[in-house]
Amino acid sequence: MYDALFRAQLDELKNGGNYRHFAELERHRGQFPAATHHGAQREVTIWCSNDYLGMGQHPAVLQAMHGALDTCGAGAGGTRNISGTTHEHVLLEAELADLHGKQAALLFTSGYVSNWASLGTLGARIPGLVILSDALNHASMIEGIRHSKAERIVWTHNDLADLERHLAALPLDRPKLIAFESVYSMDGDIAPIAEICDLAERYNAMTYLDEVHAVGLYGPRGGGIAEREGLMHRIDVIQGTLGKAYGVTGGYIAASATLCDFIRSFASGFIFTTALPPAVAAGARAAVAHLKGSQLERAAQRRAVASVREALDRIGVPHLPNPSHIIPVVVGCPQKCRYISDRLLAEHGIYIQPINHPTVPRGTERLRITPSPVHSAEDIRRLVLALEALWAECQLARRPLAAQ
Amino acid sequence: MYDALFRAQLDELKNGGNYRHFAELERHRGQFPAATHHGAQREVTIWCSNDYLGMGQHPAVLQAMHGALDTCGAGAGGTRNISGTTHEHVLLEAELADLHGKQAALLFTSGYVSNWASLGTLGARIPGLVILSDALNHASMIEGIRHSKAERIVWTHNDLADLERHLAALPLDRPKLIAFESVYSMDGDIAPIAEICDLAERYNAMTYLDEVHAVGLYGPRGGGIAEREGLMHRIDVIQGTLGKAYGVTGGYIAASATLCDFIRSFASGFIFTTALPPAVAAGARAAVAHLKGSQLERAAQRRAVASVREALDRIGVPHLPNPSHIIPVVVGCPQKCRYISDRLLAEHGIYIQPINHPTVPRGTERLRITPSPVHSAEDIRRLVLALEALWAECQLARRPLAAQ
Repeated sequence: MYDALFRAQLDELKNGGNYRHFAELERHRGQFPAATHHGAQREVTIWCSNDYLGMGQHPAVLQAMHGALDTCGAGAGGTRNISGTTHEHVLLEAELADLHGKQAALLFTSGYVSNWASLGTLGARIPGLVILSDALNHASMIEGIRHSKAERIVWTHNDLADLERHLAALPLDRPKLIAFESVYSMDGDIAPIAEICDLAERYNAMTYLDEVHAVGLYGPRGGGIAEREGLMHRIDVIQGTLGKAYGVTGGYIAASATLCDFIRSFASGFIFTTALPPAVAAGARAAVAHLKGSQLERAAQRRAVASVREALDRIGVPHLPNPSHIIPVVVGCPQKCRYISDRLLAEHGIYIQPINHPTVPRGTERLRITPSPVHSAEDIRRLVLALEALWAECQLARRPLAAQ
Repeated sequence: MYDALFRAQLDELKNGGNYRHFAELERHRGQFPAATHHGAQREVTIWCSNDYLGMGQHPAVLQAMHGALDTCGAGAGGTRNISGTTHEHVLLEAELADLHGKQAALLFTSGYVSNWASLGTLGARIPGLVILSDALNHASMIEGIRHSKAERIVWTHNDLADLERHLAALPLDRPKLIAFESVYSMDGDIAPIAEICDLAERYNAMTYLDEVHAVGLYGPRGGGIAEREGLMHRIDVIQGTLGKAYGVTGGYIAASATLCDFIRSFASGFIFTTALPPAVAAGARAAVAHLKGSQLERAAQRRAVASVREALDRIGVPHLPNPSHIIPVVVGCPQKCRYISDRLLAEHGIYIQPINHPTVPRGTERLRITPSPVHSAEDIRRLVLALEALWAECQLARRPLAAQ
């Protein structure tokens, strides 16, 4: 009976074209974005990684990880409270607090858990809290808010007027938290952070900013969009990840010492879980420290993004305009999106995972292209030639060349 | 206003003696359980780690991790669906499926997330499901069940009559899931798995067994208590961790291919999070493979546990009897528990974190001692001498020597 039920729901996914097939990859250190695709049994170029700057193969990161394995061993051996807080965790938390100009930072096993646990705890433990959540917030934020059982108001994505309308309708002295992201992963658009901070101050709300697609990538030291805009001090909680631009894994929040201590002391998802391995903490710290000082990777990424956008414009393949490093090419149909992805792989050795529902709304299925400093001019040329051929073959709409 | 609220709740913790101070440790590969305690600025012996077998410093594990760093780099670079499934993940899932005699296994970023996401998804997506949850289940299971919004029935810990009473009161054709653990972490007692399976079959219930404190440690190949008892085939979902006996980090479930595919396809906490680093997967696989073949570590651990228990009996320090490797020494008062822990550290160089509420019920505050194959006879002698001195000093109750 149970098995039939599972199968029925999986069949529904399959029939809708939304069943996920995982690509089995083997990245090659030093040669990323090149990888072996085990399913296709061929070498491919990865164009959809969140290792945005190639830090996953940076010598400083790998050296730090090798070093920590040699000196400390593999795992942390316990929760943070029961023998699992290592010197490396403490050093990394200090590095992250400094990155964001905050008194403290708190590590979690993942960015997902950091959002879920932090929002879940704030919502559950601040009596009467209303959480005002951007409509396009990440699943981890939504689940955390839901988990907290706090009242939730969803405001129209990046819409200040709608946010203010909701804030103004609430009593001024009622506790409020505005939860939003800086760079939204699937559209690559960026929130009006300063204006949201203005509203937060006017209406007595805390601010919680997810910068997972921005840390390492924006700001003079990689502190994210809020650093670039000089706004970090106006945000109560900055949340980030160590698994994207920093190339390793794990998540964190940076905030006041009291707020971090509060989450540390009450969040189930922080307390009752094994701490990250010291080698992961060491590698992440090396990445954060490197990107505080070096502008090379960020500059090279911006050049790669501009090159890809220009090349797509030349062949008329439409891509969502946005001010970030994420290039969404909307196909608008799950089957066609998968077909293009399959052909890119089989014929061109290019791996771009199709992004379908529920990651994006139905009808906006897309290829999400993430150029990085390690993509060469030749990689870009091959990508664009392949897309041009497939756009012709599939008779997909092109942007009128004059309109660019 | 927000800050004052955080402080007030933290003060309440502090006044109750339940505020957690983390010990900042630096383990030394090859010398574990020795570590540097940065707070106390001294060398200590760790007696409360969940690296139960010292696999966190095993050469096979470290070699696998170094190797994967060299060949693949640091992070996975994406979610499992978007470029983050590496060859190492696939190999590890196959190794885990084989360990438990199941068709498939599914990796998560932690044991916490594996419980939360799996139970959350089963409860949310099986219409009408009732989850029958053992009263002492881990926080991650409780949060997952709560998250699912399924009806939950909490049955008295390890009490078959109470479980049957609840099962019998439900319609036979109503979907049910019995969620329980094999070894309970804080008391070290073990569930009557065979009898629970009997009830599950009689009342048409699925079974979900958390073996995080048992995998690697019990059974001829380290498959856990269910393997030792020949019961793995009767359990629908076996959940385990790679962060305790296997010495690294991460969690998993092992189950039918359909069930794993179901969780893989619908669990938010699986889908929307960066995959574990390939080096973590490689290290965990080496640990699992090693402990499938080697009995040495398990045998040495059993000897160490027996030695500590015998020595505690000799000096009359009471410890909860149980058939597992966990030795709980109940102090029964949070302040006294912390005091003993502080003195062990300061005077004897012994680190045992006090376990207070909410990890254990108030009034059962304890030292939780986890002897391992890497604790020497001299380590044990020093531990017991220290406890003897402190028990005398604190005038704590001793077990009458004749009663042993």
